[in-house]
Amino acid sequence: MKRSFRNRTGLALFVLLTLAAAAWAAGTGNDWSGRKAKYVFMFIGDGLGLQQVNAAEVYNGSVNRTGGEPAIKKLALSGLPVQGMITTYSTNSFITDSAPAATSLAAGYKTDNGVIGMDPAKKQKFTTVAQMVRAKGMKVGVLTSVSLNHATPAAFYASVPSRNDYYGIGEQLIDSGFDFFAGGGLHQSTGKDKDCRDLYEIAKEKGYQVLRTREDILSAQPGTKVIAVNPVLDGSNAMPYDMDRTDKELSLAEFTRKGIEMLHNPEGFFLMVEGGKIDWACHANDAAAAIGDTFAFDAAVKEALAFAEKHPDETLIIVVGDHETGGMSIGFAGTEYETFFEKIAHQKESYEAFDRKIAAFRKESEKTFEKMMPLITGSFGLRTATPEERAALEEKARAGDDEARIALSMTLSELELGELRAAFENSMLEKKERAKDEATFLLYGGYEPLSVKITHILNRKAGIGWTSYAHTGIPVPLFAAGLGSELFAGYYDNTDVAWKTMSILGVR
Amino acid sequence: MKRSFRNRTGLALFVLLTLAAAAWAAGTGNDWSGRKAKYVFMFIGDGLGLQQVNAAEVYNGSVNRTGGEPAIKKLALSGLPVQGMITTYSTNSFITDSAPAATSLAAGYKTDNGVIGMDPAKKQKFTTVAQMVRAKGMKVGVLTSVSLNHATPAAFYASVPSRNDYYGIGEQLIDSGFDFFAGGGLHQSTGKDKDCRDLYEIAKEKGYQVLRTREDILSAQPGTKVIAVNPVLDGSNAMPYDMDRTDKELSLAEFTRKGIEMLHNPEGFFLMVEGGKIDWACHANDAAAAIGDTFAFDAAVKEALAFAEKHPDETLIIVVGDHETGGMSIGFAGTEYETFFEKIAHQKESYEAFDRKIAAFRKESEKTFEKMMPLITGSFGLRTATPEERAALEEKARAGDDEARIALSMTLSELELGELRAAFENSMLEKKERAKDEATFLLYGGYEPLSVKITHILNRKAGIGWTSYAHTGIPVPLFAAGLGSELFAGYYDNTDVAWKTMSILGVR
Repeated sequence: MKRSFRNRTGLALFVLLTLAAAAWAAGTGNDWSGRKAKYVFMFIGDGLGLQQVNAAEVYNGSVNRTGGEPAIKKLALSGLPVQGMITTYSTNSFITDSAPAATSLAAGYKTDNGVIGMDPAKKQKFTTVAQMVRAKGMKVGVLTSVSLNHATPAAFYASVPSRNDYYGIGEQLIDSGFDFFAGGGLHQSTGKDKDCRDLYEIAKEKGYQVLRTREDILSAQPGTKVIAVNPVLDGSNAMPYDMDRTDKELSLAEFTRKGIEMLHNPEGFFLMVEGGKIDWACHANDAAAAIGDTFAFDAAVKEALAFAEKHPDETLIIVVGDHETGGMSIGFAGTEYETFFEKIAHQKESYEAFDRKIAAFRKESEKTFEKMMPLITGSFGLRTATPEERAALEEKARAGDDEARIALSMTLSELELGELRAAFENSMLEKKERAKDEATFLLYGGYEPLSVKITHILNRKAGIGWTSYAHTGIPVPLFAAGLGSELFAGYYDNTDVAWKTMSILGVR
Repeated sequence: MKRSFRNRTGLALFVLLTLAAAAWAAGTGNDWSGRKAKYVFMFIGDGLGLQQVNAAEVYNGSVNRTGGEPAIKKLALSGLPVQGMITTYSTNSFITDSAPAATSLAAGYKTDNGVIGMDPAKKQKFTTVAQMVRAKGMKVGVLTSVSLNHATPAAFYASVPSRNDYYGIGEQLIDSGFDFFAGGGLHQSTGKDKDCRDLYEIAKEKGYQVLRTREDILSAQPGTKVIAVNPVLDGSNAMPYDMDRTDKELSLAEFTRKGIEMLHNPEGFFLMVEGGKIDWACHANDAAAAIGDTFAFDAAVKEALAFAEKHPDETLIIVVGDHETGGMSIGFAGTEYETFFEKIAHQKESYEAFDRKIAAFRKESEKTFEKMMPLITGSFGLRTATPEERAALEEKARAGDDEARIALSMTLSELELGELRAAFENSMLEKKERAKDEATFLLYGGYEPLSVKITHILNRKAGIGWTSYAHTGIPVPLFAAGLGSELFAGYYDNTDVAWKTMSILGVR
């Protein structure tokens, strides 16, 4: 039917497309002169570069393989009709951190690494698209899988010289008057030195309901202002990785659905949803945790798409990365032209969950590698084999035994085993006893050595490489659908995302 | 003026854009029903992922820095108005090689790695867009910086089960009847075993002029069929890296300008231009050579843009990568959130040129690291310093001495020096004496150990990391301008590039 539409309007469409192209070429293309959007979703995948999108799609195509050929299975987010690409550099580095990146997306101005919602001189405060639409009478929600006063969500409601001022950001969160905060908790809610009034108490005084159980969150009523905190939090007051999620928690998609319910009103709403731990997993070079959180983020996007189906003429959905993290690649020196993403499926928990097992193990009396190895096999599928065991597996595999073939593929090489043993020895030392030299940093990046080495080896076996424990400067993709989404095609700067969004919302 | 155009047509434009978006959403959007293009350029950056584009742009912004802030300086190619993104997987791997990648771009069908212009069963031969437009009476040119019978150019005129059948591909080149072949030479022109008739002789018999000097090439007359071979070739019959180019050679841009002159005729033309050694440089993990060849490729694109200015309503320019190579990243573990691309400018020649110096050095009697080090400093800027020398440099740098600051920044750390010495020892062995184990392969990937280690260290100091000596599976960007270019926006498959191009040329 759509195709016949196009056939009917052949020449007309050519003219339209040509004029549309002329419009793109005209300046930066940040001006929207059409009808204004009423419901706007901005999904920010923290650390979501093209690599992370692709890793999830290759995983999807590898594990859920249908035909004989390898084929990428697209995410919902990358299936949106409009695709763009943005530069991400900050005012003091080609490699941004999340503070200036989110400031660009929320307010349209670049700033220095570490700064939120202010100019590099830390004098001028920026106004964000969220604050603008709130002033216009729309409702606003901020939802993230990391803490609510972390850099990315903060950039939508706070202006602070340093992203590390969690308490100051928390105070501004409470004063924002936004309607819906959800996901992680408030980090350092009593201040860095635990000597300040609890932010949760102040929030309650100022009219926020603080909800902390699945039942309370799901039964919250529209018209109330809430801070909905996931029932389980990690040490940084973030939600656990989606692959570690338990039944008593909420998924990012469930939080998104609840957010839509809470915000839906005749004046419209703006909802920012951050998949924040895609970034954290990539900092730690843990592909399985990153892919898991990318799927969770994608499921949240699907909630917005379901809403948009009911309000097709008034809704804009933007999905964008703030920067790439880890220098991830679908291709590793040792695996050359092949990938084996099905090996990633053997990983049963995130590095974060396994770190806790290592910490417990470190306190045991008999701390041998041989005793640790079954834990590694249980959580990541990696295994050892004597030359005899290996020969037996090879014979079975040749005879078509699928289990033997898989076991063989998960068996550590001599090189890998040596690296794993060295990392284990390192992890058994107390942190202060560990080497601090350049070589050690390049190997483990300050993370738990054994966990990093395990995910490095597993990722390498799958055909995934990493170059950094920090962010990278490569442009990141943007996907958009709905009213005004055409404005987001092309290759432009992260600051343009804010200007386009403001224009489509009619607040610029 | 453009802006006022947009203001005048506000609502109309909104309608146009909305309909255009509807068209995108309608199927794969490969059908062009407008006027047909007369002059079509397909620029293929071999190994040109988003990373390689970005590396050149960050280098450009670092070395030619104008303001206080770091800012990407876009290439001409990434400034084209339309931007898309394509998946590149082949029928037997998520990581393609250039044979099926170019087959997809030229003919619209996927195939197995290693296969050119045929289906994976190696039975059906595909017809390429170049062959289709030639049958219609248009002229066709194939221009590449690698050999003319290498996989990418071959995919426009040949169908062979194996890309390694250089002689068979060369025979099909001669039989193609295409008007303009230029850049590299014919690899294995007398066959793999040097027992066949020289392809150059056969080409002359069949009416091709074979031109081998700068003067002859530049004075070739339109209306003749030519094979124009760069006066200097490397061991694979490819043009040398652009950073190693001498005065008697032609640049890719000069070849492109000549190609336009030779092909321009009332029936129109199709010209494929490949920047083939961006890929080779990335295989070897040499960022400077890759960036240099990316600039050379971009200069070739500018020639097409200059032509398009004179024929704005009839010209289509497509610039696309066939896959990414090397898992390149703008971000390395050791440099974290910083980049120092100005260090890349110290490299004076490619790894390929330096390999020849190493080979000569290996034949000398006194093969000490101390004797090699000045060569390394001369070609790459990397230097050693005793603790005393380092302390003196640090003092001068603190006092504001810029030369000392730069010297310090190029000084090898203890770790780097150790790695360099080990690579040197390896490079002094004859190839058959070198270790073949997993660790050695991961370190050097089969390349000259010392050269790889030098570029790895220099690249790491600049903030560039690599994960592979092969290709990666990440989608690559496409840029387009001119008639029909709107069709290339979005996220789609490499095969769609061929279908769109054929449709815009009216040959499908």
